[in-house]
Amino acid sequence: MVDFLRLDGRAVDEMRPVKITRGFTSNPAGSVLVEFGRTRVMCTASIEEGVPRFRRDTGEGWLSAEYAMLPAATHDRMPRESTRGKVKGRTHEISRLVGRSLRAAIDLSQLGENTIQLDCDVLQADGGTRTASITGAYVALADAVAALHARGVIPDGKNPLLPPVAAVSVGLIDGRVCLDLPYEEDSRADVDLNVVMTAEGRFVEIQGTGEHATFDRQQLDEMLDVAAKGCQELFVKQKAVLEQ
Amino acid sequence: MVDFLRLDGRAVDEMRPVKITRGFTSNPAGSVLVEFGRTRVMCTASIEEGVPRFRRDTGEGWLSAEYAMLPAATHDRMPRESTRGKVKGRTHEISRLVGRSLRAAIDLSQLGENTIQLDCDVLQADGGTRTASITGAYVALADAVAALHARGVIPDGKNPLLPPVAAVSVGLIDGRVCLDLPYEEDSRADVDLNVVMTAEGRFVEIQGTGEHATFDRQQLDEMLDVAAKGCQELFVKQKAVLEQ
Amino acid sequence: MVDFLRLDGRAVDEMRPVKITRGFTSNPAGSVLVEFGRTRVMCTASIEEGVPRFRRDTGEGWLSAEYAMLPAATHDRMPRESTRGKVKGRTHEISRLVGRSLRAAIDLSQLGENTIQLDCDVLQADGGTRTASITGAYVALADAVAALHARGVIPDGKNPLLPPVAAVSVGLIDGRVCLDLPYEEDSRADVDLNVVMTAEGRFVEIQGTGEHATFDRQQLDEMLDVAAKGCQELFVKQKAVLEQ
Amino acid sequence: MVDFLRLDGRAVDEMRPVKITRGFTSNPAGSVLVEFGRTRVMCTASIEEGVPRFRRDTGEGWLSAEYAMLPAATHDRMPRESTRGKVKGRTHEISRLVGRSLRAAIDLSQLGENTIQLDCDVLQADGGTRTASITGAYVALADAVAALHARGVIPDGKNPLLPPVAAVSVGLIDGRVCLDLPYEEDSRADVDLNVVMTAEGRFVEIQGTGEHATFDRQQLDEMLDVAAKGCQELFVKQKAVLEQ
Amino acid sequence: MVDFLRLDGRAVDEMRPVKITRGFTSNPAGSVLVEFGRTRVMCTASIEEGVPRFRRDTGEGWLSAEYAMLPAATHDRMPRESTRGKVKGRTHEISRLVGRSLRAAIDLSQLGENTIQLDCDVLQADGGTRTASITGAYVALADAVAALHARGVIPDGKNPLLPPVAAVSVGLIDGRVCLDLPYEEDSRADVDLNVVMTAEGRFVEIQGTGEHATFDRQQLDEMLDVAAKGCQELFVKQKAVLEQ
Amino acid sequence: MVDFLRLDGRAVDEMRPVKITRGFTSNPAGSVLVEFGRTRVMCTASIEEGVPRFRRDTGEGWLSAEYAMLPAATHDRMPRESTRGKVKGRTHEISRLVGRSLRAAIDLSQLGENTIQLDCDVLQADGGTRTASITGAYVALADAVAALHARGVIPDGKNPLLPPVAAVSVGLIDGRVCLDLPYEEDSRADVDLNVVMTAEGRFVEIQGTGEHATFDRQQLDEMLDVAAKGCQELFVKQKAVLEQ
Repeated sequence: MVDFLRLDGRAVDEMRPVKITRGFTSNPAGSVLVEFGRTRVMCTASIEEGVPRFRRDTGEGWLSAEYAMLPAATHDRMPRESTRGKVKGRTHEISRLVGRSLRAAIDLSQLGENTIQLDCDVLQADGGTRTASITGAYVALADAVAALHARGVIPDGKNPLLPPVAAVSVGLIDGRVCLDLPYEEDSRADVDLNVVMTAEGRFVEIQGTGEHATFDRQQLDEMLDVAAKGCQELFVKQKAVLEQ
Repeated sequence: MVDFLRLDGRAVDEMRPVKITRGFTSNPAGSVLVEFGRTRVMCTASIEEGVPRFRRDTGEGWLSAEYAMLPAATHDRMPRESTRGKVKGRTHEISRLVGRSLRAAIDLSQLGENTIQLDCDVLQADGGTRTASITGAYVALADAVAALHARGVIPDGKNPLLPPVAAVSVGLIDGRVCLDLPYEEDSRADVDLNVVMTAEGRFVEIQGTGEHATFDRQQLDEMLDVAAKGCQELFVKQKAVLEQ
Repeated sequence: MVDFLRLDGRAVDEMRPVKITRGFTSNPAGSVLVEFGRTRVMCTASIEEGVPRFRRDTGEGWLSAEYAMLPAATHDRMPRESTRGKVKGRTHEISRLVGRSLRAAIDLSQLGENTIQLDCDVLQADGGTRTASITGAYVALADAVAALHARGVIPDGKNPLLPPVAAVSVGLIDGRVCLDLPYEEDSRADVDLNVVMTAEGRFVEIQGTGEHATFDRQQLDEMLDVAAKGCQELFVKQKAVLEQ
Repeated sequence: MVDFLRLDGRAVDEMRPVKITRGFTSNPAGSVLVEFGRTRVMCTASIEEGVPRFRRDTGEGWLSAEYAMLPAATHDRMPRESTRGKVKGRTHEISRLVGRSLRAAIDLSQLGENTIQLDCDVLQADGGTRTASITGAYVALADAVAALHARGVIPDGKNPLLPPVAAVSVGLIDGRVCLDLPYEEDSRADVDLNVVMTAEGRFVEIQGTGEHATFDRQQLDEMLDVAAKGCQELFVKQKAVLEQ
Repeated sequence: MVDFLRLDGRAVDEMRPVKITRGFTSNPAGSVLVEFGRTRVMCTASIEEGVPRFRRDTGEGWLSAEYAMLPAATHDRMPRESTRGKVKGRTHEISRLVGRSLRAAIDLSQLGENTIQLDCDVLQADGGTRTASITGAYVALADAVAALHARGVIPDGKNPLLPPVAAVSVGLIDGRVCLDLPYEEDSRADVDLNVVMTAEGRFVEIQGTGEHATFDRQQLDEMLDVAAKGCQELFVKQKAVLEQ
Repeated sequence: MVDFLRLDGRAVDEMRPVKITRGFTSNPAGSVLVEFGRTRVMCTASIEEGVPRFRRDTGEGWLSAEYAMLPAATHDRMPRESTRGKVKGRTHEISRLVGRSLRAAIDLSQLGENTIQLDCDVLQADGGTRTASITGAYVALADAVAALHARGVIPDGKNPLLPPVAAVSVGLIDGRVCLDLPYEEDSRADVDLNVVMTAEGRFVEIQGTGEHATFDRQQLDEMLDVAAKGCQELFVKQKAVLEQ
């Protein structure tokens, strides 16, 4: 795979530099800045008493997520959704993906009737904002669970936190499988696959989209292999930062 | 797989009865009622002159889709999104999925600056509404393309219609892969996979979600095999109804 | 009146073919497809526990209605109200008319604190959608009341259902009174009168609008006579279908 | 009818004191304060260049109306529709009624591509706000037409203003037909009929609602007779104030 | 200052004619029409049981204000905020200013858990609508407090009403300090200062804006002197009308 | 003033540590992170071709600003305005203040028909977010003007940038004037004054609010003196970072 040169000189199965900073802000229970190359997302985990109506009186907790872009995060400024008065479909779609993915990383039955609210706000967008969000949100979630322990909400012997969850994007560009696409590659990829995995190597979510071209079973297999490799690198990063 | 009995007596890799009715209403260019068991969706394709702003002056067309549930489609009535003043995230997500999937079935460069607007309105919901929508929308789209030919908008020698697109859901229930889940099965499935394919056997979209449990590579492979089988049955149905 | 030929060959005081189908879908307590010629409306009646705030602690029930058009119901597709984020004035106006009309067909004091929610969704529009909605909604309402009996919510000796309610439109076209206008006639009528009656021949609602021309007392009288005749035909249809 | 005493001592076919004040404010082309007893509505007519999209390039004008209540107009304060972010169905319904009624009082083909925008804002509500609005709006409209003449927009020989339009409410209370209901009577009336007429005695709109009880043909006839009498008094008031 | 002639002949430190009418309408507890020259605002004070969530169980009351313009209040008609579905920033800003200013005129701890809702609706706008609103709202508030006394909600020996609050605008026009600017002056002023004071000569709010030009300390001092003079005249008017 | 100890040990006329970081993100023309103690705001300046409708065909530019809080910026998480579908009054008020303040720092007639859009997004809130926003936005604006020079949009000899603008808050706490209030002090201050000044010592905006207590002329003078001192320190910081 060495002869195929990407714009930034990476190998096709190489992640961009990944950096995870804990304690980025101090008000929420967990606050993380995650960077995949130039993509930068602030991920926070806030603890709120109570649960949404459909979970009440179950004795169990809930986890919900909201994703958003700051207006100047993208190359051309985008109007604020608050000013438009409407949340865009893409925003809804990613918020729901982040929520589902992180619910796979926590045992809600051990939370009591509390809600963990994740917020992923993109400060700078350069492709992979949803995968960076999921990866960073896990670390913020871990810090929020630690806070719940510290506050005595979760008793000492219990640990609702499940094995880590992380996500990468993979794409087909000119027939080649590439890992972790920046915006420039993403916009000309034929196929775009986002994969959310657990540190145990199991799948949480697979979302593959062939809007510019369809893909066959063999290409899917190749993409899944490369995604698994990328996720393993992310689990190492998550572990390192959580052990600090 | 014969020993595993589903509530409706189907084999695990068997579709519910599928019925596609063309010309369900007469105002839109294409109008189809698609039924997957008790799930019933009205799929229409309307032709509008002009394209959205981001496509203007490209000489090419556009295709967009909107999905919605009638309030009494579900077991318990749901409030209207028009009355709430907001489109729900789930609705946005499915609308976008239907749009992307059907854009894979048409060569927009041959449409001229016209828009095909697909509407998938669920009259009765019993699981698989998004996959039924995609499957029925292809037939409505084919009728709309025929209407464009008849009106002379598309010249005689040209055919923007690409190979058919159809979709099925597959799920993991108690460790067994099941095809085409009705609501009752869907709500207790551990993993839910929606697969959109072309009649040539290629993937358009893969969306797998393991909210209740994660899944491994082998389970994914099994699910994809069963999905491909289901889609083949749908292509037969689409072909039959389009040849009438 | 024989020398005046309508486009579809009907006599001026003749209804279009009317068809009422019960059990059109199976989730709501009542579900009816009503057809006045090419106009087709799905009318459902759903039962919800509890009543709106202004009826609470009265021991009485409530009935509310919502009317809407599917986007492809009309000749030219109309944008969805959910996407626009606003309900149109016309939609509000008709929803309120349907609600008031059907509240005249039920004794709310015998319902207990339950709400019957009517939904009238127009699948295909060709004039008279509001009158078809009212006529079909009565049948769905009757089925919902039967369901309340079956569930034991309404005790055996009681019957909250009042005499049937139905509605027709009448118009003045070139000085001639015409019954049950399809869209083509409606759009060129000088005066448009919608009449909601009970099977006992009493008025529930009269809405006459002379936007293109005003009308005198004698014309009003003629229109009311023809409307009464049309309603009588509808009561026969309602009775027949409810006796099946 | 003398033995039936109304709370305010009026005869059953007697209007409340009606007062119309021209030039109530000075910015709009027409500005009128109309009072039906304690009901007070500010009716303005503003002239705007251009017409809505559906009238463009017809060479003809348009007239549109908006009705609203100030929050403290009613006995108990009502939340603002601007703050709720939604216009209520009742508001929509009355706005549309006022617009249709006043379009019957103007020949739009003589306006050029200009729009007359009527605003009826209720300062104090005591029943009959929609009929007072229509009656006052006609006077504001007449002043706006005069302004168009003065500006030379309408040439000297032409007069787009048609015969006056006015409106009253009539109700059935305990079986008696009563004219011009204040709130206290309106809320206990069995039937409520709003009638919009021209000074030539023709009907523009008839809206009769029997939510609390239905009504028969003879009762309708009686109500129409009394309404016609009430409207005649209003035409005298309109004429007097316009001749000042 | 005599050589500087204002369009309406006033001295630079002279208020326009101010008129305050109590009991303008009769439904709300307080209802005032306040006029600063051609600017006319209807100010009402309504009493509502209970307080907003953030004040509950404090045993104290609350006061809130909403400001709005009728659509035809301005020279060119402005679209309604209810129809646009959004409240404008300017409206929000003034509503909040009026609320803060009047909360300085009442001891909320003596109100019990009741809310006084002020509404300032501009019937005619000619500059200074926010200062007229504050000045008139104080009188409506005083009447509402009297009503609370009359109803026994506030016990006899207590008086939550604090010293009167009034407001004026001052501007810098061509380097001259001018009091109480009408629209024509306001739109060409370099600096615009709104001052809210108590009858004891203390400041409640100062809002100075130098969008067209900045201002120095000496100019600020001059403007504050003139504002104080204007407020004193308003306190005389308020006192006179409240003693009637 | 030394005997009055503030929680963080500052003197009453001492600013919190202020830090301004240029080039915080790289997509917008100007991107600044400004910190006043724990308060952190990301200020960006984006350049957009064209101007709003009311400025078209004037040959001049425009500058607009939007302020917002990230949901987890505050101690308790606040719901997103995009999800609520409404912008809050406070947000509107501050956005307008920032816009007016920065328009005092640029000669719009030299921009051509271009718009500079400022966005101030609060990452962490601890009082003074509006003053930090204004102070940081000036630096982002300066970088955007430099970008316009670099792109040749502004010719070499011209400089639309006017003298720097900065802002501080001052408050009265227990009768003492304190500079630059953190949240804890702000919430118990009797009077809150925000002052926007130019580096030449002139006022752009003064907003003083005495919701908890009114203030007299001498207190105002003291507060203005301290504010001027604070602004001078900010101008030094701005200059230093712009000279890097």
